[in-house]
Amino acid sequence: MDVALGTPWNRYMHDSLASIWYTPEGVGKYTYVHRVSIAVAVAQAEIGLVPAGTGEALTRALVDLDRILEIQAAGENHQLRAYLRMVQEKMTKNGDKDFLPYVHNRLTSFDLEDTATSMMLVESADLLLADLRSLAASLQKLAREHKHTLMIGRTHGIHAKPITFGKKCLDWLDMIERCRTRLETAKGEVAVGKISGAVGIFSQPPVVEEKVCGLLRLRLARVSTQILSRDIYAAFFAEVGLLTGCLEKISTDIRLGQQTDRQELEEPFRSTGSSAMPHKRNAEKCEQIKALAKDVRGLIGALFENIDTWDERALDQSATERLAFASILVTTGYMCRSMIAITQGLWVNVEQMRANIDRTNGAIYAEDVKIALQEKGIPQTAAYDLVKGPAQEAYLGHGNLIDNCLAVSEIAKLLSRQDLEALCDSKQAFRYLDEIYARFDL
Amino acid sequence: MDVALGTPWNRYMHDSLASIWYTPEGVGKYTYVHRVSIAVAVAQAEIGLVPAGTGEALTRALVDLDRILEIQAAGENHQLRAYLRMVQEKMTKNGDKDFLPYVHNRLTSFDLEDTATSMMLVESADLLLADLRSLAASLQKLAREHKHTLMIGRTHGIHAKPITFGKKCLDWLDMIERCRTRLETAKGEVAVGKISGAVGIFSQPPVVEEKVCGLLRLRLARVSTQILSRDIYAAFFAEVGLLTGCLEKISTDIRLGQQTDRQELEEPFRSTGSSAMPHKRNAEKCEQIKALAKDVRGLIGALFENIDTWDERALDQSATERLAFASILVTTGYMCRSMIAITQGLWVNVEQMRANIDRTNGAIYAEDVKIALQEKGIPQTAAYDLVKGPAQEAYLGHGNLIDNCLAVSEIAKLLSRQDLEALCDSKQAFRYLDEIYARFDL
Amino acid sequence: MDVALGTPWNRYMHDSLASIWYTPEGVGKYTYVHRVSIAVAVAQAEIGLVPAGTGEALTRALVDLDRILEIQAAGENHQLRAYLRMVQEKMTKNGDKDFLPYVHNRLTSFDLEDTATSMMLVESADLLLADLRSLAASLQKLAREHKHTLMIGRTHGIHAKPITFGKKCLDWLDMIERCRTRLETAKGEVAVGKISGAVGIFSQPPVVEEKVCGLLRLRLARVSTQILSRDIYAAFFAEVGLLTGCLEKISTDIRLGQQTDRQELEEPFRSTGSSAMPHKRNAEKCEQIKALAKDVRGLIGALFENIDTWDERALDQSATERLAFASILVTTGYMCRSMIAITQGLWVNVEQMRANIDRTNGAIYAEDVKIALQEKGIPQTAAYDLVKGPAQEAYLGHGNLIDNCLAVSEIAKLLSRQDLEALCDSKQAFRYLDEIYARFDL
Amino acid sequence: MDVALGTPWNRYMHDSLASIWYTPEGVGKYTYVHRVSIAVAVAQAEIGLVPAGTGEALTRALVDLDRILEIQAAGENHQLRAYLRMVQEKMTKNGDKDFLPYVHNRLTSFDLEDTATSMMLVESADLLLADLRSLAASLQKLAREHKHTLMIGRTHGIHAKPITFGKKCLDWLDMIERCRTRLETAKGEVAVGKISGAVGIFSQPPVVEEKVCGLLRLRLARVSTQILSRDIYAAFFAEVGLLTGCLEKISTDIRLGQQTDRQELEEPFRSTGSSAMPHKRNAEKCEQIKALAKDVRGLIGALFENIDTWDERALDQSATERLAFASILVTTGYMCRSMIAITQGLWVNVEQMRANIDRTNGAIYAEDVKIALQEKGIPQTAAYDLVKGPAQEAYLGHGNLIDNCLAVSEIAKLLSRQDLEALCDSKQAFRYLDEIYARFDL
Repeated sequence: MDVALGTPWNRYMHDSLASIWYTPEGVGKYTYVHRVSIAVAVAQAEIGLVPAGTGEALTRALVDLDRILEIQAAGENHQLRAYLRMVQEKMTKNGDKDFLPYVHNRLTSFDLEDTATSMMLVESADLLLADLRSLAASLQKLAREHKHTLMIGRTHGIHAKPITFGKKCLDWLDMIERCRTRLETAKGEVAVGKISGAVGIFSQPPVVEEKVCGLLRLRLARVSTQILSRDIYAAFFAEVGLLTGCLEKISTDIRLGQQTDRQELEEPFRSTGSSAMPHKRNAEKCEQIKALAKDVRGLIGALFENIDTWDERALDQSATERLAFASILVTTGYMCRSMIAITQGLWVNVEQMRANIDRTNGAIYAEDVKIALQEKGIPQTAAYDLVKGPAQEAYLGHGNLIDNCLAVSEIAKLLSRQDLEALCDSKQAFRYLDEIYARFDL
Repeated sequence: MDVALGTPWNRYMHDSLASIWYTPEGVGKYTYVHRVSIAVAVAQAEIGLVPAGTGEALTRALVDLDRILEIQAAGENHQLRAYLRMVQEKMTKNGDKDFLPYVHNRLTSFDLEDTATSMMLVESADLLLADLRSLAASLQKLAREHKHTLMIGRTHGIHAKPITFGKKCLDWLDMIERCRTRLETAKGEVAVGKISGAVGIFSQPPVVEEKVCGLLRLRLARVSTQILSRDIYAAFFAEVGLLTGCLEKISTDIRLGQQTDRQELEEPFRSTGSSAMPHKRNAEKCEQIKALAKDVRGLIGALFENIDTWDERALDQSATERLAFASILVTTGYMCRSMIAITQGLWVNVEQMRANIDRTNGAIYAEDVKIALQEKGIPQTAAYDLVKGPAQEAYLGHGNLIDNCLAVSEIAKLLSRQDLEALCDSKQAFRYLDEIYARFDL
Repeated sequence: MDVALGTPWNRYMHDSLASIWYTPEGVGKYTYVHRVSIAVAVAQAEIGLVPAGTGEALTRALVDLDRILEIQAAGENHQLRAYLRMVQEKMTKNGDKDFLPYVHNRLTSFDLEDTATSMMLVESADLLLADLRSLAASLQKLAREHKHTLMIGRTHGIHAKPITFGKKCLDWLDMIERCRTRLETAKGEVAVGKISGAVGIFSQPPVVEEKVCGLLRLRLARVSTQILSRDIYAAFFAEVGLLTGCLEKISTDIRLGQQTDRQELEEPFRSTGSSAMPHKRNAEKCEQIKALAKDVRGLIGALFENIDTWDERALDQSATERLAFASILVTTGYMCRSMIAITQGLWVNVEQMRANIDRTNGAIYAEDVKIALQEKGIPQTAAYDLVKGPAQEAYLGHGNLIDNCLAVSEIAKLLSRQDLEALCDSKQAFRYLDEIYARFDL
Repeated sequence: MDVALGTPWNRYMHDSLASIWYTPEGVGKYTYVHRVSIAVAVAQAEIGLVPAGTGEALTRALVDLDRILEIQAAGENHQLRAYLRMVQEKMTKNGDKDFLPYVHNRLTSFDLEDTATSMMLVESADLLLADLRSLAASLQKLAREHKHTLMIGRTHGIHAKPITFGKKCLDWLDMIERCRTRLETAKGEVAVGKISGAVGIFSQPPVVEEKVCGLLRLRLARVSTQILSRDIYAAFFAEVGLLTGCLEKISTDIRLGQQTDRQELEEPFRSTGSSAMPHKRNAEKCEQIKALAKDVRGLIGALFENIDTWDERALDQSATERLAFASILVTTGYMCRSMIAITQGLWVNVEQMRANIDRTNGAIYAEDVKIALQEKGIPQTAAYDLVKGPAQEAYLGHGNLIDNCLAVSEIAKLLSRQDLEALCDSKQAFRYLDEIYARFDL
């Protein structure tokens, strides 16, 4: 084989998120670590722990990721030390040698690493939030366009009562807006830094931690072990998992609608469905979202396990996170982008939606007949039992609901054919539509 | 076998939570469903949909869970219909027969069921929150008592630097207080009702839904399918899962401390450890918390899968929830209670904690020597490399850190024995303790 | 509330499995533990460790589960010690007092407990295997009856090519038979005992372990810590999880077929679908299987976590197993029974299946036309591209495949209308049916 | 950032497994697909479906992965069609144009893809099995060397009774050998091919499938939908998950032993532990194995979900598998290699192991005293209760077991100091060692 290696995760890309998370050996993190280093130096200078100018010297030592990779390749197995060596080289070269003793002063690796990770997660959340805004806009557009597009509502896969496709889009929109709210909250919770040193007992005055967090616009970890407590990260990714779950639900609804037996919806079609069957128009992008949601869900489970670390820290969460954070975020970003494309290009087969409403010979209006009987004074369970026979027969293709009801004397004496015809009307789905839409300011 | 059947979940009980969730066939839910039914009737009466007095009639029809069970046993497989029959019987008996047609009017089962479930979850959250307050109080007490109880901080299981046990209690407290905040938020999010009828298209004016939610002090589901979107429940249980994860972490720390090789902590001892070995004092309650956390975590994963239901609803989330909601909540309540008991009765072996600090011949002060060298002008990586040899030797039992350092001329010319003795002092752990405690108002 | 407590797991019952696993406090286990105790005494007597007759004395001390519960209620927190006290009481009463010192001799609790658990799992596997035989028989019957019942095969929810329903039943049967084979293997693997004493270092000659395993028809754990290694149990439950996964797949196929838009299959109907909509015929039993599969899957994940115990044992797998073993097995048994009932009562709507084949205006025969073109010398991708247009048009409701193909001159010059009509024939699904069935000896 | 993108999965490499699974866009699969294509052509030629020589022509069309990538980059979204175009180009170039119509004849993509995947899994299993053989050899060596290296056995983290380190190595070895057996079985089960065409109804005589499977040394899928049933793959990966669980358990045992408070074991040390604390010697490789096991476990859960596909297939398992198969296998390979290195370089601190046995003042021999009392005629629970006090006191540091026992008159009258001294002997751990080792032919 003459092709380079590449893991399959590269197939599902979100460029901006990938540029944060998919760097060789994860060295991209050191652009964030460096910002923390600088903030620490600035804060330490403010209280006289290091000379003024240390922060500026560090700022001049621009991060060179390729050099970090080289140092690692030359045998330095500790990533942060590889970064430090790179910085020291640069400072020496920049004539900032005098500041060398003040670099990584009174710090432990995870003062920098966890604080940097929080910054990366905040930035990732912002990118996902931008995608969610686009997705919400796309769903709003569909909801507006199809406010009065009648379709059958289904429960248990069975035709239930008419709704409109616009109303279904509001269901989806509502989920996505909940996801936005949650991700905003999650972003706030994860925006937390710690400069509490080895085992969290502080090798320098806690005021440095406070200043650093202020400079980086992070909240302060009120207390920390050598690392941030992992419930903080698990909480963030739980929200991401809720988002992928919501995308999964929307994709399933579209797949269900795209079934040949429904033909109500179709995701934008690509050139080839099946290599064997030239007629196939598959809901591949939606199926893919479902498929990816499973992997994401699995990895999030791993992050819940991670809360349980030993003592002031152990490394048994490190590789878990290295793989899961990156994979989950880039994949989730890809799923969002994919869903934006699907909803923007969705084909809504309005005629077929209308036609499908009539498949059950009026059985779907059985509840309306039941309610009308209740209003004539029949208790709920009795009214239900009266309509059940005629409705089930209609559903199974024997007659239609109106005729079947009229054949039941207890019904016929309370409701005329005209009454029944008025009840069996898909337009009822429009009755409270304005009020529902008003809740969305639409 | 002559004993009645009982599932093992009954072994891990939290009485108040169990009284909500562990009722035969789940009929306890109908005490909540009934409150929703009444609120609906009141709201419907306000807009003239049903006669005034319907709500009062329903209120008089007190829920009789045993009768619901009887009706089910007699063959009514639909739970809500069994409840309705019970209500109709009572109303007939109470002389409220005229109101019968107005019961369960224009509703679908899940208008009542999901709204009731939300109420049960809110009540459960309140119970858990009360337990978390007790737990926090217990941890605060430990933190205060042991503010200056020196112990070794460990990373990767290796002695790192001295901390105090009180500081460790603050780490635990911080987790638990985050859990409280999250559970408060989660409670608010799940406090949501829906009266939007079959397929969520409303069989009655949406104002009824608004009034009902107001009466029950719930927020309004802006839109809903036939059911509440399952991301709402998954979000709630994600927070519960974070809580059990935090309890798991605390329990692991105690188990680690209870190891014979540390003998620093001991959970309250029950009468028997091992049936073979009479000397055993096992951390059984802590081990049990770990064990239960795994089952809870597994069930929460199932609730994330549940977001993906078909169309306007399917029943494929119903049994999942029936089992998972009850099991997770009662078990979590049990775990909280157990952790309260453990922390209230925790034996802190202050002498052994102190003694364990000295196990590594001073190696644990290597960072302090390194920092001192940096302050004498040695760059971080060079200082690190200088101290590494002496420190590693001391750790492995060859000499002690001070002697080993003095044997290295580059160190010896910068630091005297007196300097080194000052550096190798476990009291350093006290340096910033007041500032840490101040962040907790302690 | 005046009803007794009961967890929701009691709702999904399999009587025989429940009688093994759902006993209060799990004391049912002691019927198995007692059989191990007896076998140990017999083996020990054979090598002279205890007097002859000890086994008989133990056999006379019939297990009294209610008494064990009483002793526990009176404060004995260690379950095995409660059992031992019950046995000692019985022996004293039976005049077997002289044998008392020889009871639980040189044993640790888990010599008995794990060996007993293995016996319970073997018995559970036998019960599940019996159900799987019934299920396989039911599927075979369906496969035979519907060998020639034409239906459309679907991929990605899209009509693909005709199959027969009998062939689909063979797919299901094949899964179930694989599950049977796997469960047989799993049963063999879990049928393992250990009498290696505390920390597995043997407090008595290993030959006792060999004899005990022989008496109980178990294999020998070649080595063990204080407990059996938990990969053994995880392996067993992995197979159970594969079974529930297969039941889930079959249930999904039926749910898909029961959709109003297909109306091809219907599970046996119970009295009420929806409390609001009298016409509903829901696939509730199938939906329930899907729902339960999620909980089971979650709990199995917990058992994979359990492999990682500390040292020679920890209790952190105990509660996990107590909940998961019982819940998984009884629920799985219930699911099997439910699927047996579904398949035995399944309504196969032969007419609708036939009718659905024609929904796509012949588009589903596009592959056959493509193959025919290949056989006329057109390369695969070119043949594919030729047929794609006509097929897609037909699928979208514009014309039919034959007319559309004849309008393409490259096709028309190779295939006549008569050729095309011969190709567009659902009976092709029968072509190799005998050969497929022969592989099942059907 | 100027470094190329690379996912973090690349950090945990197993070269041979990576060369199968980590190819850009997964095109490496087409080397296997091509072998299936050739076998199909050979089989088809044997029954006259295609001209003799088709297989040879295909064989000459060597797979060019770079060209496949180019074709995909040029817009062919269907991977198999990209492969087919590459093959057609090669055949045209090779002068094999006449055979073009016979390529991919009567096949659907997954005839090739799933059969190829099975081949890749078989090959992966062989690679893992080779590693497991090395690991077993390494563990055998340790078991032999340390057959008589005394150490304390621990349960619940508490000192229990002496064992030997060699005995512990046998526990690990036994797990690994079970994993080998399971993986052998799994390999056999997954070695299955299918050439049953679209929707599994065969577009060509089933004998072709039989011949192809014979040529590729695979078993025949007795029946299949358009794809192999996903329980087959889930079953394979369940075994892989059991393996990673066993590696996790071994790694935890080593981490526990490496704690400073035990200092019994140490994994081979790399240059730097902590960037802050120069004395640290962390069990990083072991911690990493634990960390990776969590991600693997999560992804395996996704594969259990995958069993539930729709109808004759859906694509909702495709991306799940693309990510999970590759990631799990390469990571598992890495974990095996890592564990081989750890066990080969493990430092066993024999002196400290010996010293730790004495930490509890003889309390660990309490069971032996209890057994001796039983043999003097005291029933088990009474003997237990007699020894408990002296043992617990000794454990807590008050006196030692022998003195404490002698202070109890009921004990003292049955056992002399000499008796007790004989009982309190760590050498008891050697008593049945030969018999245990004999079970391993060691």
